[in-house]
Amino acid sequence: MIQLSLIGIGSGNPDHLTRQAMRAMNAADLILIPRKGEGKADLADLRREIAADVVTNPATRIAEFDLPVRDPAITDYRARVDAWHDAIAQIWADSIARDLGTTGRVALLVWGDPSLYDSTLRIAARLRPAPQIEVVPGITSIQALTAAHAIPLNEINGPVTITTGRRLRDEGFPPGVDTCVVMLDGECSFQHLPDQGVSIWWAGYAGMANQITESGPLAEAGPRIIARREAARAAHGWIMDIYLLRRA
Amino acid sequence: MIQLSLIGIGSGNPDHLTRQAMRAMNAADLILIPRKGEGKADLADLRREIAADVVTNPATRIAEFDLPVRDPAITDYRARVDAWHDAIAQIWADSIARDLGTTGRVALLVWGDPSLYDSTLRIAARLRPAPQIEVVPGITSIQALTAAHAIPLNEINGPVTITTGRRLRDEGFPPGVDTCVVMLDGECSFQHLPDQGVSIWWAGYAGMANQITESGPLAEAGPRIIARREAARAAHGWIMDIYLLRRA
Repeated sequence: MIQLSLIGIGSGNPDHLTRQAMRAMNAADLILIPRKGEGKADLADLRREIAADVVTNPATRIAEFDLPVRDPAITDYRARVDAWHDAIAQIWADSIARDLGTTGRVALLVWGDPSLYDSTLRIAARLRPAPQIEVVPGITSIQALTAAHAIPLNEINGPVTITTGRRLRDEGFPPGVDTCVVMLDGECSFQHLPDQGVSIWWAGYAGMANQITESGPLAEAGPRIIARREAARAAHGWIMDIYLLRRA
Repeated sequence: MIQLSLIGIGSGNPDHLTRQAMRAMNAADLILIPRKGEGKADLADLRREIAADVVTNPATRIAEFDLPVRDPAITDYRARVDAWHDAIAQIWADSIARDLGTTGRVALLVWGDPSLYDSTLRIAARLRPAPQIEVVPGITSIQALTAAHAIPLNEINGPVTITTGRRLRDEGFPPGVDTCVVMLDGECSFQHLPDQGVSIWWAGYAGMANQITESGPLAEAGPRIIARREAARAAHGWIMDIYLLRRA
């Protein structure tokens, strides 16, 4: 029987690691780490550094693997992602069979928390025979964002919607809430909102050493964020950002 | 100048503590811990045990204080909560003045994460002169819930709404989403939903050693949860629970 630990390692700050995550890493026989393919070299290195820093159990082996690329010949988005997840699951299965066999504890290090806009659980569900899955929660970029600004996520007893850049662009401010958090937005989709009466709290590289923040009424902060985001992306070669929008 | 660290300590599992939280606790001159008033003796003890376990800096002092009670003579809910927050801020200010003076680092240990349905940031905003506030993110009960069930929070690229029991009762399933997480629900408000086509994942004491879980289609899992929740509350004297609802 294979036991598979999906370990949330937080949002880019090595000190986001929990004691539970550190114990789970040291309880693993094998830790699988993607070597490349994320297009974010800083993050790939950081995951390796975290493993090197935390793992003290000499029996824990670390195996790196190359992430496959998505097949551009598959035009349907969902079909392309499904095929990609199949390919990743196959690489995990091959590595487990080669490096561990049919029994033991395997760990995967997941940015943020394994529950939030992450595919690891869905890829793990493809493994046969089905492993026993354990999830170790981690600090999400939502929490890194609110911590960076020292703001509450919700208003008193108020609801919050977590959504994506595409949905914000296509559907506008989510219905029934005054607060929303936008993730997976490569296009500053807030610029398509009517900008009166909305404030924004934004962070690039939330939680990381090079974290940058901006906030204010959307009308004046929006253009500032677009410019700063573009400059940061040019400087680092990549950016991951997240923001909270609140209606007055 | 007073520096105030609001430290998320996770959802009842001492191993939810992050390295950042442990460092912030040991960097504090004074840690303020509420002695009672939560009506949840297990949690009050746990916070004290966490502090005793983690603090190794001999210069860090721990001061306990009694939480005031809300004034039942104030009939308006918001006014009653505001007065209560004023009273707590005054107790903090008195303790800081007495135990620390006008300069130094004060820490407060917050269940879960300081951003999520928690008043600590709002109470801290009442302090004068205004302290410099640092937020240390912690594992939330939402993440403890999804980890307990090993499920994703969102569907692929799908939005999620976090809401309260009262709102679910008054407004039904939130609009525009197929997934919602319900917190602060003392009344199993899911029982007022039309129960066809909705599944529920529930946890009591999420993340704690005595965590209990139930899940399934709402029509059959709902009554099971109500019975199990009542039995657990009777056995422990209190319960905190949380659940995720997903439309098919």
